[in-house]
Amino acid sequence: MVAIKAGILGATGAVGQRFVEALANHPWFEITALAASERSAGKTYREAAGWRLDTAMPESVENIEVVPVDPKAVDADVVFSALPADLALTVEPEFAKAGFAVASNASSYRMEKDIPLVIPEVNSEHLGLLEVQQDTRGWDGYIITNPNCSTIVMTLTLKPLMQFGLETIQVATMQAISGAGFSGVAAMAIYDNVIPYIGSEEQKMETETLKLLGEFNGSEIVPADIRVSASCHRVPVIDGHTEAIWAGMRAKPAPEEVRKAFLNFDPRLGELPSEPKKALIVRDEIDRPQPRLDRSMGKGMSVSVGRIREGIRYIAMGHNTIRGAAGASVLNAELLHSMGKL
Amino acid sequence: MVAIKAGILGATGAVGQRFVEALANHPWFEITALAASERSAGKTYREAAGWRLDTAMPESVENIEVVPVDPKAVDADVVFSALPADLALTVEPEFAKAGFAVASNASSYRMEKDIPLVIPEVNSEHLGLLEVQQDTRGWDGYIITNPNCSTIVMTLTLKPLMQFGLETIQVATMQAISGAGFSGVAAMAIYDNVIPYIGSEEQKMETETLKLLGEFNGSEIVPADIRVSASCHRVPVIDGHTEAIWAGMRAKPAPEEVRKAFLNFDPRLGELPSEPKKALIVRDEIDRPQPRLDRSMGKGMSVSVGRIREGIRYIAMGHNTIRGAAGASVLNAELLHSMGKL
Amino acid sequence: MVAIKAGILGATGAVGQRFVEALANHPWFEITALAASERSAGKTYREAAGWRLDTAMPESVENIEVVPVDPKAVDADVVFSALPADLALTVEPEFAKAGFAVASNASSYRMEKDIPLVIPEVNSEHLGLLEVQQDTRGWDGYIITNPNCSTIVMTLTLKPLMQFGLETIQVATMQAISGAGFSGVAAMAIYDNVIPYIGSEEQKMETETLKLLGEFNGSEIVPADIRVSASCHRVPVIDGHTEAIWAGMRAKPAPEEVRKAFLNFDPRLGELPSEPKKALIVRDEIDRPQPRLDRSMGKGMSVSVGRIREGIRYIAMGHNTIRGAAGASVLNAELLHSMGKL
Amino acid sequence: MVAIKAGILGATGAVGQRFVEALANHPWFEITALAASERSAGKTYREAAGWRLDTAMPESVENIEVVPVDPKAVDADVVFSALPADLALTVEPEFAKAGFAVASNASSYRMEKDIPLVIPEVNSEHLGLLEVQQDTRGWDGYIITNPNCSTIVMTLTLKPLMQFGLETIQVATMQAISGAGFSGVAAMAIYDNVIPYIGSEEQKMETETLKLLGEFNGSEIVPADIRVSASCHRVPVIDGHTEAIWAGMRAKPAPEEVRKAFLNFDPRLGELPSEPKKALIVRDEIDRPQPRLDRSMGKGMSVSVGRIREGIRYIAMGHNTIRGAAGASVLNAELLHSMGKL
Repeated sequence: MVAIKAGILGATGAVGQRFVEALANHPWFEITALAASERSAGKTYREAAGWRLDTAMPESVENIEVVPVDPKAVDADVVFSALPADLALTVEPEFAKAGFAVASNASSYRMEKDIPLVIPEVNSEHLGLLEVQQDTRGWDGYIITNPNCSTIVMTLTLKPLMQFGLETIQVATMQAISGAGFSGVAAMAIYDNVIPYIGSEEQKMETETLKLLGEFNGSEIVPADIRVSASCHRVPVIDGHTEAIWAGMRAKPAPEEVRKAFLNFDPRLGELPSEPKKALIVRDEIDRPQPRLDRSMGKGMSVSVGRIREGIRYIAMGHNTIRGAAGASVLNAELLHSMGKL
Repeated sequence: MVAIKAGILGATGAVGQRFVEALANHPWFEITALAASERSAGKTYREAAGWRLDTAMPESVENIEVVPVDPKAVDADVVFSALPADLALTVEPEFAKAGFAVASNASSYRMEKDIPLVIPEVNSEHLGLLEVQQDTRGWDGYIITNPNCSTIVMTLTLKPLMQFGLETIQVATMQAISGAGFSGVAAMAIYDNVIPYIGSEEQKMETETLKLLGEFNGSEIVPADIRVSASCHRVPVIDGHTEAIWAGMRAKPAPEEVRKAFLNFDPRLGELPSEPKKALIVRDEIDRPQPRLDRSMGKGMSVSVGRIREGIRYIAMGHNTIRGAAGASVLNAELLHSMGKL
Repeated sequence: MVAIKAGILGATGAVGQRFVEALANHPWFEITALAASERSAGKTYREAAGWRLDTAMPESVENIEVVPVDPKAVDADVVFSALPADLALTVEPEFAKAGFAVASNASSYRMEKDIPLVIPEVNSEHLGLLEVQQDTRGWDGYIITNPNCSTIVMTLTLKPLMQFGLETIQVATMQAISGAGFSGVAAMAIYDNVIPYIGSEEQKMETETLKLLGEFNGSEIVPADIRVSASCHRVPVIDGHTEAIWAGMRAKPAPEEVRKAFLNFDPRLGELPSEPKKALIVRDEIDRPQPRLDRSMGKGMSVSVGRIREGIRYIAMGHNTIRGAAGASVLNAELLHSMGKL
Repeated sequence: MVAIKAGILGATGAVGQRFVEALANHPWFEITALAASERSAGKTYREAAGWRLDTAMPESVENIEVVPVDPKAVDADVVFSALPADLALTVEPEFAKAGFAVASNASSYRMEKDIPLVIPEVNSEHLGLLEVQQDTRGWDGYIITNPNCSTIVMTLTLKPLMQFGLETIQVATMQAISGAGFSGVAAMAIYDNVIPYIGSEEQKMETETLKLLGEFNGSEIVPADIRVSASCHRVPVIDGHTEAIWAGMRAKPAPEEVRKAFLNFDPRLGELPSEPKKALIVRDEIDRPQPRLDRSMGKGMSVSVGRIREGIRYIAMGHNTIRGAAGASVLNAELLHSMGKL
């Protein structure tokens, strides 16, 4: 098989490095371009990246020369975007217009009508929007987005609850530091502390969720009729977002019914390389899931749930920079490829 | 004025040391007895305590000889109990029977019908139960209790919301390590982690709150008709419980009305030494309150609130071992003294 | 007594806020000017500071209008400088020339021949350099500096060892995050980690110490003949630098002799307000000093020592932003005032 | 090849779980017995272990029934001991007498004259002591030990320095929490703190190092003539000991010569499964090695060194529960097997 050429936009940041980690030994993709800011362009990736993951930098990327974030400089079939939202806003359409498939982790286009916001296990049928998008915009390529990290972790647990008539969600998050990038949170700010505010995060959880759980009617997404109320907090954890969720459902299922719905959740995607064996892992211990112990399950792609109690209340936890970011985009691209759309 | 003789039961633990700190230079009380386990009895407090607060041990207690937790060994008018619940269950009645006023931070008797569970700013009228208690039990002394730390922080913010017809509460806590005592949480368990479970904590918040906000009808407490649903989590913070609260109210007040209710909350107790100038401090910054920055406000006796949003959602934060434990008991005793009941 | 008018340069940063804390209720000084960058100038201190200490901002400074760092804009007798080194390099001489006494925590002029580098308990006689300085430079005012935070903590323990013929020092530091300012260290960089490098820190410890322990011969400082070798490391601690020190001495004192030298160290300064009762606190417990428990001793102005063992090896620990920075400058200014030089 | 039957003594603790992790998919060994305290015996390993590593428990051990720590109950050729020292003292000889090869991580027998203390890359020739041991004690089996975690990290870096005439070592450690086991350090004790004391640690580093670098003369080990002075500290890091080392050498090599000695250090062991590609990894970045980023190098079996400066000073860092404990014992057993001694 000929490898699909993959570029990474914003390759030196926290999510960008996770993209490199995910793609360096990928069976389908081959990293052919690493793009970053002008400051990095021209350097080798080794020099530019300031590698900060606790695995060694893959040797195959060490000497790749970083290029600018410009369609003309990038040789690839698909580009994975870890760009900041303001930059993504102008750059991603340029790439799509130039014929690239853009799998974006940025928030800029998630809520656009004709741009699919996808978690493969939740709403793969929304990919139908791609045709709408290309028709509307006249692009050769396209943009596909994945949700915000805390939305992904939550929504994977909401999908199996839809059968009970999901009406209301209250969610309190305890989010990891890495969600803000390598330099986003000062140690003096978060150490021995909780910061009860993350910019735009509550709004993202409250809107993205409705689109994800909405229905594609052939031309657009009809958002789900659920009220989501989020309270988002940063805690001193490196990776892994923990979420306390109250789910109000018409059918008023008992905790055990909810547990079974989680256990039976089996969204068959076919054999995608990044797909975990279990999208949801149900923990029956009284004090799990916990981010440090459970974030690496399914190579960081499984979401763990536990403490399902009357309410219905439960805890969800997932790896924010893998399942909640780079892994999410890669899984989207794998899905597209398996459907012949890449 | 002659000082009131004060004993501390469980004087060497995390809350016990906070009692020592609160009482060592108190204008009304004088520490006359420090009681602890057999292992400590006979040693000086300096030897026994393994002092772990970040202020120096008060010189006045250094050479006090620790006595056993036994009414015969304790010379005091009032005893402050930081005993573990199982021990408190048997020991506190012995002290009450022997004529002591027992101001207890233990959970053992909080929900007993004839034992007041009091936060001075919330339900001082419940002290009427003391007569009922002495009549019923034939004790010369009595037991008065204060709530669990996370209940106190929350309930101080609920009191001013009662005017809006409070119906439902959902609360997700992010609780400090010190709540479990000096050795209660292993570093390997909590570092870079969240533990989404604290034994009995959710139940305490769900029941104590109703008693606190209930009405004393002259013979008993009629619990408030509120549904409380709690999800309790330990986070890597040393002191200070942070709570994300959703309050459902019949009157559906706007966030600004709730803010004003918090600002106007002014429970005049008179001049109690441990009473903070403000029971509630309203923070208007978008990212406050925060435990490390705000836990010491009002010498640890103020609860800070902020981020009052539609929902109604808001954040409450207070010092768990001062306002939520030792300071709570001391304030109760001060109230009793000001009413001539000590 | 008429208060001495005090200005703070760099008033919004981590050390600047410690200056405000130290001076707001000072018996001798009155804050009359808060100077900061152009970005802050014109705002009230409340707006500009983003106050981050765990004590409330002193009310007296809340509404002071921040002025630019310019001698013409600052109304004061003495200015305390918490400026970054590059800025201090150009600005501090302007203030000195304009007649201000400049008590600086910046590193820019510490090693200049005619500028005293002073810890009051160690080398107050070096203040004689001020006359040399004014003669040489023709300034009406002058600059006095205090050492780097880790140097101060160490040197206070070295002074009493000089009697044993101090020859060599090896020191491994475990330094707090606050030493790099509020935003200096990213949480992702230091959490669950040690960073074995702090820019210029080793060099500062190796040179400043020799000047501090040197002799003033009436015209210049003859540096002490000691070899200092430092290895500096950042650890996940908020405040308080811990230092493991090996001291090689000609007289080869036993640990108990060293302990007595520390205990007997009594550098009488007279009644300076910021002077702690004990410059050195000797801890005999096997596991002290510890930064979280001991950094606030003497209101952050005492250095704690312990674990004095054969070698001679011992541990020193002190509060880096109080004794090691703002408090150091204030103590220098107090000394100057007590000598009639302010 | 027939697998070698391996038992683990103390299988439920922090090091015991690392043994399980190391052996569960080992090409040579097969876990045939998991032994732990009476409290655990009879339970499945899943029930007994309270698994706390961030990888999932290997499925192959989940249902193994835990047996008591008794030679009669253990079916194995080699046992790996993660027992506490006091228990190891009595139990390990019983196993050796009963014919087991005992690869011990316990400290009890490390300094015994006839018991080898081995790091394969440092002193594999000391295995000759095994014959002396069996002759002397009349055992069918034997005990082989590996050093303390902080000794291993340091000694791997000292071996290549022996060529320069190593005379003195001063070492300040910054040790991880996991070194004390799952419950060994309370969160309240270490959070935002440094504890400048670890029981017996300094003595272990000062004595074990001399034995490791000593010479086997056919009947005993002649200890190396080096003076080691250690100062040991606990810091808030989960895994990975960082050490600041001063090495005094007769030949007075320049830093670059020392760097080359580290780079050229190539202790060929043959193809042992747990042997890392590089025993020492030299980092040239100014701020490395760092425990969180570098502890997993070589699957936790490589020691990283950096910051080689005049002095000679440098930083060494290694994974304390892998290279410093379980991995060390396993590597010893692999070496024995490759030599036909198992």
